[in-house]
Amino acid sequence: MNRQITLAARPVGYPKESDFNLVEAPIPVPEDGQVLVKTLYLSVDPYMRGRMNQARSYAANVEFNEVMVGGVVAEVVESKHADFQAGDIVNAHIGWQEYGVAGGGELRKIDPGLAPISTGVGILGMPGLTAYFGLLEVGKLQDGETVFVSGAAGAVGSVVGQIAKIKGCRVVGTAGTDEKVAYILDELGFNAAFNYKNVNDYTAKLEELFPDGIDVYFDNVGGRITDAVFPNLRVKGRVAICGQISQYNLESPEVGPRFLWYLITKRARIEGFLVTEFAARHAEALVQMGEWVRDGKLKYRETIAEGGIEAAPAAFISMLKGGNIGKQLVRIAEPS
Amino acid sequence: MNRQITLAARPVGYPKESDFNLVEAPIPVPEDGQVLVKTLYLSVDPYMRGRMNQARSYAANVEFNEVMVGGVVAEVVESKHADFQAGDIVNAHIGWQEYGVAGGGELRKIDPGLAPISTGVGILGMPGLTAYFGLLEVGKLQDGETVFVSGAAGAVGSVVGQIAKIKGCRVVGTAGTDEKVAYILDELGFNAAFNYKNVNDYTAKLEELFPDGIDVYFDNVGGRITDAVFPNLRVKGRVAICGQISQYNLESPEVGPRFLWYLITKRARIEGFLVTEFAARHAEALVQMGEWVRDGKLKYRETIAEGGIEAAPAAFISMLKGGNIGKQLVRIAEPS
Repeated sequence: MNRQITLAARPVGYPKESDFNLVEAPIPVPEDGQVLVKTLYLSVDPYMRGRMNQARSYAANVEFNEVMVGGVVAEVVESKHADFQAGDIVNAHIGWQEYGVAGGGELRKIDPGLAPISTGVGILGMPGLTAYFGLLEVGKLQDGETVFVSGAAGAVGSVVGQIAKIKGCRVVGTAGTDEKVAYILDELGFNAAFNYKNVNDYTAKLEELFPDGIDVYFDNVGGRITDAVFPNLRVKGRVAICGQISQYNLESPEVGPRFLWYLITKRARIEGFLVTEFAARHAEALVQMGEWVRDGKLKYRETIAEGGIEAAPAAFISMLKGGNIGKQLVRIAEPS
Repeated sequence: MNRQITLAARPVGYPKESDFNLVEAPIPVPEDGQVLVKTLYLSVDPYMRGRMNQARSYAANVEFNEVMVGGVVAEVVESKHADFQAGDIVNAHIGWQEYGVAGGGELRKIDPGLAPISTGVGILGMPGLTAYFGLLEVGKLQDGETVFVSGAAGAVGSVVGQIAKIKGCRVVGTAGTDEKVAYILDELGFNAAFNYKNVNDYTAKLEELFPDGIDVYFDNVGGRITDAVFPNLRVKGRVAICGQISQYNLESPEVGPRFLWYLITKRARIEGFLVTEFAARHAEALVQMGEWVRDGKLKYRETIAEGGIEAAPAAFISMLKGGNIGKQLVRIAEPS
């Protein structure tokens, strides 16, 4: 049988385990051009919280009793597509389930020789690509600029800071535990970092850390940290809005200080993006990212929940509350 | 003698007439390369409110007892620069005074044959250029898109809407009196308009007026009107932040709903700008704008305060409170 996690209820505030159901379904049968895959690692990501809402989002939201959306690292079990054979390791978008079928065109092969296969949904997958295109294409990062990253110990933020370092930039990050701060400072080489839970005046803190201002802000978090960036932006500063995780689980919308005035005085830009916009260039970016990983220029950490598919809801909720360092995964099965 | 308006006090909230002084000074004498000009029309503009603050702005602020900054239409009285002679009509940046000297390179000749000379600080001056570059370069307007303009009956907004119409776009504007709404509908040809003082739910109003969403929002106002744009933006929408006049005279900063989340789902961009960024292209744009004015494709209205330089503070305060339709000017002297 194929065990799946489906949406049981639309969450109010943080999701609860009771917002999900564990159900069983037959293992699907691939048709011509399709491939049956078995999930090895499930990726849980902040964007999935938005898909649980009724409200309009950028993609169709999950309906009641539908399988939760998501990307996985999977092993090909049976292939009816010429490009794949049993045993291949692939990135697939089959959602929170143990088995799924997908068209061959929807799969991306993962090279087990380059890095552990789990990176196929991490630094060498969607989060890594999000960091790469968000920083370089949306943020238009130039060598030697100053960069601030929120959610800096997460799957995306940790890569953003390291790419900025590769580009010769001064990088400051913020995260929500001292352990995360130590990680990005000591292991990832950020120039500075602070635990936002131990700082009251973020505006003053950023002024201290960026005496000449911020060229690029890569925002995963939103809220009060982001408010503090605008007075500290440099002229022609850029703000890449990747996520707003501080806002996803609020029971009622938050208000904050108005800041658009700063954009005039700084001639600055804010831009939201999705990694899917850059799909045509994902392969090219993965070559570059793979080289950096291989050469030790990009490091990564994973937080892997054990316990199979039934552990996914708790792992997802933990990630939304900041329980992870680096990429949050759920181990579903071992490769054969 | 040369009568001048200087800064007497930094305003709290809306400026008062007592925040300004009327003083007398000798008429200055031009040196080699300089030109002495006599002010005919003084332009009063929203940005000047920012210059009255102590807080950092994009340009040096006005100090106590300094002449208020501003652009004028002036007549050359005495020239020590080869390109100018007595009687020439020019645009100069000498501030709120009856006479001033400026280097020849700081002056721009106004062609009295093209349009009334007062347009040199209006539709064929800084406000017109602000509309042109803000809409076409910052907003990246494409033919046939949907456009929303706040402050739509003002010196900038009224031009924004008309350029958008020239580009085949559907244009909606908002303004603060029924007279202004009638003006932009009946005289300027906007597709729709509303008096924001008569509407409660701006989000619903914009949804009604833009059933398929807003491609470009040109913002002169900020505040609640602007809040309502984000839920109504189209995918890849652009927001050009030109001004935030609703925020300039607040005694304490306002809060509003957080909206950056929408930028992700819409992959949208917000960008602030100053017309001075496009200085190298002002001449080219003025040729185009002049043709449109000559051909009747761009209409304009002026609100001219009489009473000379001493009328400037009241005219400025009135403009900040929305008393003007089109460009707010102060008539200082008649051409010789």
